[in-house]
Amino acid sequence: MALGPGDDAALLPTRPGYQSILTCDWFLEGTHFLRHKHPADSVGWKCLIRAVSDVAAMGGRPRCFLLSLALPASCTGGWLDEFLRGLRRASAKLSCPLAGGDTTQRNEILINVTVIGEVPTGRALTRSGARPGDAIFVSGRLGEAERGLARLRRMGRIRPNDPLLKKHLYPEPRLALGQWLSAHRKTTAMMDLSDGLSTDLPRLCAASGVGARIQSSLLPAVPRWNHQTLELALHGGDDYELLFTVRANQTLPAKIDGVPLTRVGEITGGRKVVLVTLKGSEQPLHDRGWNPFAIKSG
Amino acid sequence: MALGPGDDAALLPTRPGYQSILTCDWFLEGTHFLRHKHPADSVGWKCLIRAVSDVAAMGGRPRCFLLSLALPASCTGGWLDEFLRGLRRASAKLSCPLAGGDTTQRNEILINVTVIGEVPTGRALTRSGARPGDAIFVSGRLGEAERGLARLRRMGRIRPNDPLLKKHLYPEPRLALGQWLSAHRKTTAMMDLSDGLSTDLPRLCAASGVGARIQSSLLPAVPRWNHQTLELALHGGDDYELLFTVRANQTLPAKIDGVPLTRVGEITGGRKVVLVTLKGSEQPLHDRGWNPFAIKSG
Repeated sequence: MALGPGDDAALLPTRPGYQSILTCDWFLEGTHFLRHKHPADSVGWKCLIRAVSDVAAMGGRPRCFLLSLALPASCTGGWLDEFLRGLRRASAKLSCPLAGGDTTQRNEILINVTVIGEVPTGRALTRSGARPGDAIFVSGRLGEAERGLARLRRMGRIRPNDPLLKKHLYPEPRLALGQWLSAHRKTTAMMDLSDGLSTDLPRLCAASGVGARIQSSLLPAVPRWNHQTLELALHGGDDYELLFTVRANQTLPAKIDGVPLTRVGEITGGRKVVLVTLKGSEQPLHDRGWNPFAIKSG
Repeated sequence: MALGPGDDAALLPTRPGYQSILTCDWFLEGTHFLRHKHPADSVGWKCLIRAVSDVAAMGGRPRCFLLSLALPASCTGGWLDEFLRGLRRASAKLSCPLAGGDTTQRNEILINVTVIGEVPTGRALTRSGARPGDAIFVSGRLGEAERGLARLRRMGRIRPNDPLLKKHLYPEPRLALGQWLSAHRKTTAMMDLSDGLSTDLPRLCAASGVGARIQSSLLPAVPRWNHQTLELALHGGDDYELLFTVRANQTLPAKIDGVPLTRVGEITGGRKVVLVTLKGSEQPLHDRGWNPFAIKSG
């Protein structure tokens, strides 16, 4: 960075041969997290991770971020310290330093994060390149974060290092995978799974002007496979895994950077998004992904 | 823009020989504007102008912006239409297109705007370059926006084209002036006046490690000069004029792009920021600039 926080604006050198990637995300108390349920450390970690996940979804790498923070006076002590600890860890892990921001006082905790990333010119992966016959892949396991959220809402006292909560509290953006897919030119379209497969896949299909057929039996759900884990894999949000399409004649490694890749279906010529059930029948895949407002009552 | 709204992130080509300018600003109901006092058209205009003013303050030009918007369902009809009208006019006027953003539902109107600008490498004007002996200048007139706010709070029904409200509702960032000052290399430090001279000047002095002496008699206050207009010129916020310092042996035109420039004092060697009163005595210039929370009761 040429100039960081403290002036009217930050200055960032540009690099020849690269495009800038720009993305911003709300992270609001009551909508995206609960002050008395989510550890402040996790709030700090996750507000940055979520925005960086959009950079991963383009095949890029993050360069820096801007933080807009509004806080009640009662949160400027211990809560803020813990929040900044989580944010600093994420920033260091992702090599994505703070460039600037804006702070004010408010009766609720409001967070907005802008991430500036970069990708070699012409190598960004968008949502619009999927073609009929392409294979549909997802990274990692689906539904784990939603299961963690359900557990969190049931628990009285949170243990932040509870392994069942890890994916919900401390997700990791798939940066290395996104960059690998961008570099190897097999991928036709890509996005991140932030709102759940049944919400996000139709978005990719709409952007590409195609349909899709998903096989229930192929979904990389969380262990203890049952009806509930299938539902979580289809509709659970907050996973920050990558959803991408690959030309039919291409093969992929089973894992990239330790993250398993699973073929879950194929792109079709119509506009319909359908699910093949475990019994083999086809049904429409209804959008039942993550709804930020449902959490309000939690 | 290589890729605008609708994908995971936006893509912006970078230009050799330029640095990116990054800035973001809150614009929150109850803190920065009042839903039932400020026309939605003005809210749309001003949320972008405020962030672009930070780009002007670096001597740069805006390239695009990201909009994060949280709205009550009751505002998605007429209010949103009017908001977008004001935002579109500002975007067109500033040649600063929408690149992307994030929207959600919320019980209050929350706005965050990120602007990405550019400046030739090495030509950005920061707050830290002022040296003892430099002349201190401001653009335009000071205190007009605060006077407009006071009028707005008294009024029952707003006429958005009331000339006394214009500076408060529809400020204009000093882009041409900022770029002129950057190009002519006479300016040693610069920032925009968003919180009032008595709040912002000490920030510039702290960044530069200097003090300042301001002459009350030189302040370009609003007409009908009296004690109240002097107070407004010293402490009124929201003017989005430029505050800058120029080496002592340099001269400036009286106006740039139609905006008058006024020498209001000089940089000093200590760390004190003092005001020379109309009677010629010196007193400390106390920080009494714009406080976003005062408006809450309005």
